[in-house]
Amino acid sequence: MNPTLPKGFRASGVAAGIKKNGKSDLALIVSEMDCVAAAVFTTNKVKAAPVIYDQKLIADGNKLRAVVINAGCANACTGEEGLRNCEETAQLVADAISGLHLEGGVQMAANNVFVMSTGVIGVQLPMDKLRNGIPLAVSALSEEGLYAAAHAIMTTDTVPKVAADDIAVPKPDKGPGKVAHFAGIAKGSGMIHPNMATMLSVVMTDAVVSPDTLKKCLDVAVRKSFNRISVDGDTSTNDTLLVIANGASGLQPDPLEVEILLTSVCMDLAKQTARDGEGATKFITIEVTGARDEKMAETVGRTIAKSPLVKTAFYGEDANWGRIVAAAGYSGEEVAPDKLSLWFGGVHVFANGTPTQYPEEAATAAMKSRDVSVKLDLGMGNASATVWTCDFSHEYVTINGKYRT
Amino acid sequence: MNPTLPKGFRASGVAAGIKKNGKSDLALIVSEMDCVAAAVFTTNKVKAAPVIYDQKLIADGNKLRAVVINAGCANACTGEEGLRNCEETAQLVADAISGLHLEGGVQMAANNVFVMSTGVIGVQLPMDKLRNGIPLAVSALSEEGLYAAAHAIMTTDTVPKVAADDIAVPKPDKGPGKVAHFAGIAKGSGMIHPNMATMLSVVMTDAVVSPDTLKKCLDVAVRKSFNRISVDGDTSTNDTLLVIANGASGLQPDPLEVEILLTSVCMDLAKQTARDGEGATKFITIEVTGARDEKMAETVGRTIAKSPLVKTAFYGEDANWGRIVAAAGYSGEEVAPDKLSLWFGGVHVFANGTPTQYPEEAATAAMKSRDVSVKLDLGMGNASATVWTCDFSHEYVTINGKYRT
Repeated sequence: MNPTLPKGFRASGVAAGIKKNGKSDLALIVSEMDCVAAAVFTTNKVKAAPVIYDQKLIADGNKLRAVVINAGCANACTGEEGLRNCEETAQLVADAISGLHLEGGVQMAANNVFVMSTGVIGVQLPMDKLRNGIPLAVSALSEEGLYAAAHAIMTTDTVPKVAADDIAVPKPDKGPGKVAHFAGIAKGSGMIHPNMATMLSVVMTDAVVSPDTLKKCLDVAVRKSFNRISVDGDTSTNDTLLVIANGASGLQPDPLEVEILLTSVCMDLAKQTARDGEGATKFITIEVTGARDEKMAETVGRTIAKSPLVKTAFYGEDANWGRIVAAAGYSGEEVAPDKLSLWFGGVHVFANGTPTQYPEEAATAAMKSRDVSVKLDLGMGNASATVWTCDFSHEYVTINGKYRT
Repeated sequence: MNPTLPKGFRASGVAAGIKKNGKSDLALIVSEMDCVAAAVFTTNKVKAAPVIYDQKLIADGNKLRAVVINAGCANACTGEEGLRNCEETAQLVADAISGLHLEGGVQMAANNVFVMSTGVIGVQLPMDKLRNGIPLAVSALSEEGLYAAAHAIMTTDTVPKVAADDIAVPKPDKGPGKVAHFAGIAKGSGMIHPNMATMLSVVMTDAVVSPDTLKKCLDVAVRKSFNRISVDGDTSTNDTLLVIANGASGLQPDPLEVEILLTSVCMDLAKQTARDGEGATKFITIEVTGARDEKMAETVGRTIAKSPLVKTAFYGEDANWGRIVAAAGYSGEEVAPDKLSLWFGGVHVFANGTPTQYPEEAATAAMKSRDVSVKLDLGMGNASATVWTCDFSHEYVTINGKYRT
């Protein structure tokens, strides 16, 4: 399936000159009708201006009509001026869109516009470039603009991240019915362990969803997707995940269906993000089973996923299970060393606390592919969780040693 | 001062063939008389056999006479056989020393011997090599053996770590009196954030110290030294710090003096360890001031010290203060972004939550030296803490991608 925008949405991505390299750096998403919205934000105490701005916007229950995202400048650690620049950006978008007289005809106000930024910290937004760029982005809006928007929000990403899913009622084999679409874009690394390049994501749907349902479904979706990936264990000042529903399909799915669809799209985006982690040469799936509860499985998995020693071993294609077992041991969870069992791919290397007599070649072979999977059984219960990460390469050091220059 | 062993101690380091490269890999420290002992161990739930063995030894209040340390094999994840090998190693040492009829004349038992290991996880100790090596180490014992022992416990270390300090009563300028010596050796990275190469350290003194005082002083010393360094945020299965006091000087210092001397030696060893972190090209001192309490300062400092983004920026000599501020923000402490101020060397780059108008060249210049210092003021109180770390280099990835091979 070739992902497209849900009904009633248009998007664009243009080069406003914020990035020094001249690549596209300004994304715009506009809905023809008011959207119900829900969002989750970084837990960092140092929040970028757009995060502070958007948190108030959402808390006040504003209906959204547009999302504007710039790359190249994070607008973080920018004080009062940073907040004023968010307001002006929103106003510029509202004015430019209102001038278009879109279907629906409602005049758009600044508080219908959600603002996101990613890039270098400590630099004010270049407002002259936004004043020129926003009208460009508005004139480029298109129902085919999903990929253009995904491109414009990239920083150290090597590929744009787009995902989509849909739901039909009644089912297609029972004749024509209504269909609701979900589509999302993302950039950067993870919600909990994002790199400074920031995790930003917007998911759009034309389903009819109540604000309460949307918030509850988002919380589940993010827990099982963006909160289960890690690139380097750092948490950014700007991380934001927004979901907006404009109801244009006329279809109101069950809350459980919304949850499933939203989780599916977010999980797809999260896995793409881990796969494209800075300098990544491998995509690593870590399944933790046999936990007392899901939180325990998740904590152990996340500790393994962010260990530099584990991640460099994957880069070196070294089946160094000792580091994985040791990371489980310092996760803070009450793991019992003599109950641990570990598999690389299908190779059982560690059973009940001691190494098996496995052939080293088999374990090494399991490390050679681009996609590597590890399973750790804690031997204490029936709960499980899967986390995704990437390896830690020379290229990661190169990228992050010279990011600003 | 050229560090030497305190009175009544002998040490050696020999090649027993445990390391594949033929370098020395077996260290032995012996005291002519019984020692009072105190130790701290890894908090990892997955503990190596010698850690489990030594914890019982210390808990049972055994007097120590010897410490045996092998490099090249961690004896971790080795089950019952691993524990039996600790016992046999201790017995081999006790038998070989007892055959020497050292001054003091007491026969040594296995439970007078502390056993430490470092190296690869999941492999049983090569006992045939220890059976041959231990008599060699005993015959090499010497009052000049401090550096030989420090050499023999190295793994990925590039230099041996030795530190010493002493205390004279009455003070030298008031005529001859008694002198108590402290000397220590260390290898690996940190107690809280050690790399898999493991932090091991032994500090010896000929001061007269009670078991209670020794334990209390050790807890203070480790908190201000090894617990304040970080190389990569991983916590090993083997980390151990042992301090032994044989009383041979006849001098019983005040507890506060013991605390100061022990802290001085441990801090020296800890800083040497951070400086020699795997692949390190820079030694970084992070001073956090203006905290509500010392724990807050320490937590913020440690979070900064283990951030891969901060550490790669240091490697790239990039004065990327945004990453330091962001790390403070996700430390879990209640930092107030608008009260933060930051200095690179003497360059004030960030004041009360916004960047200053500092010259970028000055900040970059401060990053160019081998030793870099950063000061972060939280603006909330009077407590402070200093932590030490190193940068994150291409060489770190190389070392840890191929450690086992």
